[in-house]
Amino acid sequence: MRRSPATLTASTAPTHAAGPVGGTLPAARTRPLPAGAVRLSATGHLGAWQERNAAATIPHCLDALETSGALDNLRRVLDPADPEHHDGPYRGFNFADSDVHKTLEAVAWESARAGEPRHEDAVRRVVDLLRRAQAPSGYLGSHVLGSRDPSDAAPSGRPYGDLRWGHELYVLGHLVQAGVARARATGEDDLLDLAMGWADDVVARLADGEELVCGHPEVETALVELYRETGDPAYLDAARRMVDLRGHRRLGAGPFEPVYHQDATPVLEAEEVAGHAVRQLYLLAGVTDLYLESGERALLDTAVRLWDDAHGRRTYVTGGMGSRHKDESFGDPYELPPDRAYAESCAGVASVLWDWRMLLATGESRYADSLEHALHNVVAAASSTDGTAFFYSNPLQVRDGHDGADEYQASGRRAWFACACCPPNLARLVASLHTMVATLDADGALAVHLFADADLAVPGSAVRLKLRTGYPWDGDVLLTADAPSPVPLALRLPGWADAARTRLEVDGEPVDVASALDRRGYLRVAAGARRVRLVLPLEPRVLRAHPRVDAVRGCVALARGPVVHCVEQVDHPGVVLDDVELDLAAGVTVGPADDALGVGATLRAVGRARPAAGRALYSDVPDDVPEISPDVVHVAVRAVPYAVWGNRAEGPMRVWIPVSAPPRPGDRRRSGR
Amino acid sequence: MRRSPATLTASTAPTHAAGPVGGTLPAARTRPLPAGAVRLSATGHLGAWQERNAAATIPHCLDALETSGALDNLRRVLDPADPEHHDGPYRGFNFADSDVHKTLEAVAWESARAGEPRHEDAVRRVVDLLRRAQAPSGYLGSHVLGSRDPSDAAPSGRPYGDLRWGHELYVLGHLVQAGVARARATGEDDLLDLAMGWADDVVARLADGEELVCGHPEVETALVELYRETGDPAYLDAARRMVDLRGHRRLGAGPFEPVYHQDATPVLEAEEVAGHAVRQLYLLAGVTDLYLESGERALLDTAVRLWDDAHGRRTYVTGGMGSRHKDESFGDPYELPPDRAYAESCAGVASVLWDWRMLLATGESRYADSLEHALHNVVAAASSTDGTAFFYSNPLQVRDGHDGADEYQASGRRAWFACACCPPNLARLVASLHTMVATLDADGALAVHLFADADLAVPGSAVRLKLRTGYPWDGDVLLTADAPSPVPLALRLPGWADAARTRLEVDGEPVDVASALDRRGYLRVAAGARRVRLVLPLEPRVLRAHPRVDAVRGCVALARGPVVHCVEQVDHPGVVLDDVELDLAAGVTVGPADDALGVGATLRAVGRARPAAGRALYSDVPDDVPEISPDVVHVAVRAVPYAVWGNRAEGPMRVWIPVSAPPRPGDRRRSGR
Repeated sequence: MRRSPATLTASTAPTHAAGPVGGTLPAARTRPLPAGAVRLSATGHLGAWQERNAAATIPHCLDALETSGALDNLRRVLDPADPEHHDGPYRGFNFADSDVHKTLEAVAWESARAGEPRHEDAVRRVVDLLRRAQAPSGYLGSHVLGSRDPSDAAPSGRPYGDLRWGHELYVLGHLVQAGVARARATGEDDLLDLAMGWADDVVARLADGEELVCGHPEVETALVELYRETGDPAYLDAARRMVDLRGHRRLGAGPFEPVYHQDATPVLEAEEVAGHAVRQLYLLAGVTDLYLESGERALLDTAVRLWDDAHGRRTYVTGGMGSRHKDESFGDPYELPPDRAYAESCAGVASVLWDWRMLLATGESRYADSLEHALHNVVAAASSTDGTAFFYSNPLQVRDGHDGADEYQASGRRAWFACACCPPNLARLVASLHTMVATLDADGALAVHLFADADLAVPGSAVRLKLRTGYPWDGDVLLTADAPSPVPLALRLPGWADAARTRLEVDGEPVDVASALDRRGYLRVAAGARRVRLVLPLEPRVLRAHPRVDAVRGCVALARGPVVHCVEQVDHPGVVLDDVELDLAAGVTVGPADDALGVGATLRAVGRARPAAGRALYSDVPDDVPEISPDVVHVAVRAVPYAVWGNRAEGPMRVWIPVSAPPRPGDRRRSGR
Repeated sequence: MRRSPATLTASTAPTHAAGPVGGTLPAARTRPLPAGAVRLSATGHLGAWQERNAAATIPHCLDALETSGALDNLRRVLDPADPEHHDGPYRGFNFADSDVHKTLEAVAWESARAGEPRHEDAVRRVVDLLRRAQAPSGYLGSHVLGSRDPSDAAPSGRPYGDLRWGHELYVLGHLVQAGVARARATGEDDLLDLAMGWADDVVARLADGEELVCGHPEVETALVELYRETGDPAYLDAARRMVDLRGHRRLGAGPFEPVYHQDATPVLEAEEVAGHAVRQLYLLAGVTDLYLESGERALLDTAVRLWDDAHGRRTYVTGGMGSRHKDESFGDPYELPPDRAYAESCAGVASVLWDWRMLLATGESRYADSLEHALHNVVAAASSTDGTAFFYSNPLQVRDGHDGADEYQASGRRAWFACACCPPNLARLVASLHTMVATLDADGALAVHLFADADLAVPGSAVRLKLRTGYPWDGDVLLTADAPSPVPLALRLPGWADAARTRLEVDGEPVDVASALDRRGYLRVAAGARRVRLVLPLEPRVLRAHPRVDAVRGCVALARGPVVHCVEQVDHPGVVLDDVELDLAAGVTVGPADDALGVGATLRAVGRARPAAGRALYSDVPDDVPEISPDVVHVAVRAVPYAVWGNRAEGPMRVWIPVSAPPRPGDRRRSGR
């Protein structure tokens, strides 16, 4: 196996951070904290999620690598004399190796979080299997290596024969990320070495003029991480080259058009997000990674332009992205149907990964807002409350009579999928959540982005901070230091929080919020503080969509803080949920916690239901039935966080609820608890 | 080639009708008129459509059979020594032969309409080509016959090796229909003989116990037609057997679930339409055909049950069916998004074919209503006004910024498609429209279903009727006889027509409409009448959808008679159509004809537009902008028949228009012209 010279320096390369997006990040406005600087406590919402991920989701994924055949696919490649050789057919999609790599990455971040290697025996066995499966060239895609007859999709033994659909560089990307994560987390270079063996071959091919660009972006962000880990600029250059190669229709068109692969328009010229949502989001994460290293303005401009398009015109109120089942794609502007929302779980993960990089690049709170929003809604909803069942797509509405047999529009979460990209993707994200709690600004301030029970070390000092809050159920956030903070502090003021109703106290003294607010959206507290208290307004909010979101006209969504709610049939016996309308004039109030669902608050409202099952599909307006009729029933509406829907029973659900009369300006809809 | 004994009697078999659905139809409540009994005049709307079909669409389809490669696919099968042998690769989908057969069927019905063979040289050349391509067994699918290497989708030379996706019996079905049409129209049995050669092989295989059921239903209805044409009950039994075989998951699951092929539930046990819409509709046409022959109640019960489901919960206001691009399928109940409406043109055609059979089975006006409605809206819209460009899918909304690059969601009509099922399907339907104008009821009355300029012969008499009307632009319908009608007459009262505002005169005397209305929805006129005048109320109608059609909440659709309208960007300069709301209080009036579009009336209304492009995607209700603001502009709204949208310019369009305040009961929305 060829080795890059950089391998020799891998363990001594600058590793600033202990999570994804390492290195010194020359162009960053704010940077991740060093290894071990943040620990989430299981007493808080995010910390408990990480614990569940460690205790349930990661072991579940490890088991599934066996049962799904993902490891057997690698064993097929082994020498027939190898006792572990497997003789069955290849199973799953041609990128099933990535399930293995993402699970290894999740284990690595979990090891970093735990401060000690986790599942180390299992990991070593898999790494050993990968080593034996790897071709002398470094190539390590089991679908191609194990191809045995011409009817296989991949031409036998010919790597990169199908760049459009082969997913080979996508698989390499995940292998690289797993290798980097394991090296950062445990200091073990074994997996990183394997990944570099393959990556070096790709780098060499690019240098020889091969136009390697993958139908599924992912390797771009991974190669930048590999650069950060090794210091070898060849990886950075390769990622940059791949971005330049894309968008010129080199991939051709197969079952999908070039736009599906973001190959219809040069990357830096795109005006809109388009095509397959996960591909688009991974690509933009890579573009932002490249900016963080180079400071090249065109990269950031593109990222900001497309972020604005995605978030201004094509994002569900749950943070979900990718409106269409067809091609798993972004749709037209404002095409956001709640029932047919695809909103793939992986797109939620990818959106968070991109937001994180945008936050590092700019230090602006809106990216942290978006990250937190996606996390608490679409990403959280993708897993069951026990952490072992998952949604592939995340609709905002399920109708009475829904046919949920298809796993991509399932009525309930499933343990695994034919295309199992989502579960290990969720696992690797959640295992690294703690790295996103706070960063160090370029001007030296410690910026707090996520409110959670966490312990933090101020970089370059012995001072320890304690962050304590019942958030997102409670708006009271307390940050205490065991000595006067040697650095300024910056606390995010979420975009949904009305500054006039937010309170800030520093060492017991009230501080004017408007004055403390900087232009990046953070409340600044000068160095020397020991106790900062932020009280965020968590009154229920009633949301409406832009008028061009036709699919939810006449409806509202209920939210509280970052948590979007939904109504479920199981909470509304005696009526069909589809018939329920909300009476906004009656107000929305905070309801009790639900321990079984693991939520600290619910919402209550008043509605009515008029059974509509027998009505004509279309009718003349004057012939409409009276709006008040004897069969209208009063409904006590209970809304639960969207994150926990579908954990009790299958059945109708909706985020956007029709209102019995449309809200008019001047109406006061908000209600205190 | 094996020949069925029935072939010998083909030309002497009972051929009651000159169009689709021939034979004596023992269980029918009303029956098609004999050959030559109806002729549409080009002075009327439907007759002009048939003329355009003959002059433009059919020649266009014939040309496309060459340019698309459909004929070359058959030439590939010829002996290499045959001068016409073609050596190139197979082109198109594996059912491209059916484009040939549907075009031949269209030419046949057009020949029947014209009273003389049309394009006879071209047809004979194709029939000759088919004869040479046919295998000794009778099999005549060029995709399988031309399969040359193992990488081809079809196992080389092995018919019925892929019942799920092979489309072989689907292709047979269209060949049979073409053969039957040609025999009925011209008396030529050449094509029928070829078709029977293949059909006999299938019948024999079924008799041998082979469980032949096709992933794409179509052959069922075709085999019943073949029975009607030949009198051989083996074809009827084969069709019945195929219905029984379906629904037991024999087809397995491939890229699609069993429900896609209507193979998840036994056909006669289904409670809902489901899966691929065209497949479902063709299957139900076949089920209804079987009822028409056997009178077996379970068949009709199933057809009625599923018709009610389809039309009560899953049909667009344009008559379009099949809500989802994904799998081209019916969706959940009330899942009817206007923007993502798939509403495939072929589903519109299939819906008309099924309605026609339901009408024959029951004599009930609601089936004729539906047939007419689909015809004037989704089916008409599928073709350009010049008859040479087509929509594959028929959305009810196109947004500003729509990406219409994909041919299945095109911004404009296209000359042909990779999957070219729709254009020749439209051609064969339009060429046979005249056969649906009137039927003879079991009780002897002549029932008029479609209002058009037409000349009719009363069966069994020398009396001729003239039907004259400017319908659908004008509600005045005049039926005159050259002698007292020897039979009672029955005129359809459309479901949208208020009986209280409809006028009926018989021989100059007003008749009470309510008294004349029979329980099947027809106005009965006793034998002996010479002049019947029906005046239908054509005031604009404002339609709203069932409240569970979430996608169009707060919107209305404008209709007049059977014609649904839409608004187009091209008629609304200075505003973005997406921002327009309708002010219903200002009324809707009839606007002038548009000769360029070929429509006799348009609609006018008043609206307003508030530019919304810069607004936040989601906002708190209290923070909403005022409803009346300085940037609101008054808009003179012009609505044109949906049938002619997209003929002037590409751009935004919508059928469902938001209203500035929701209609309330008691509001008087209708406006006279």
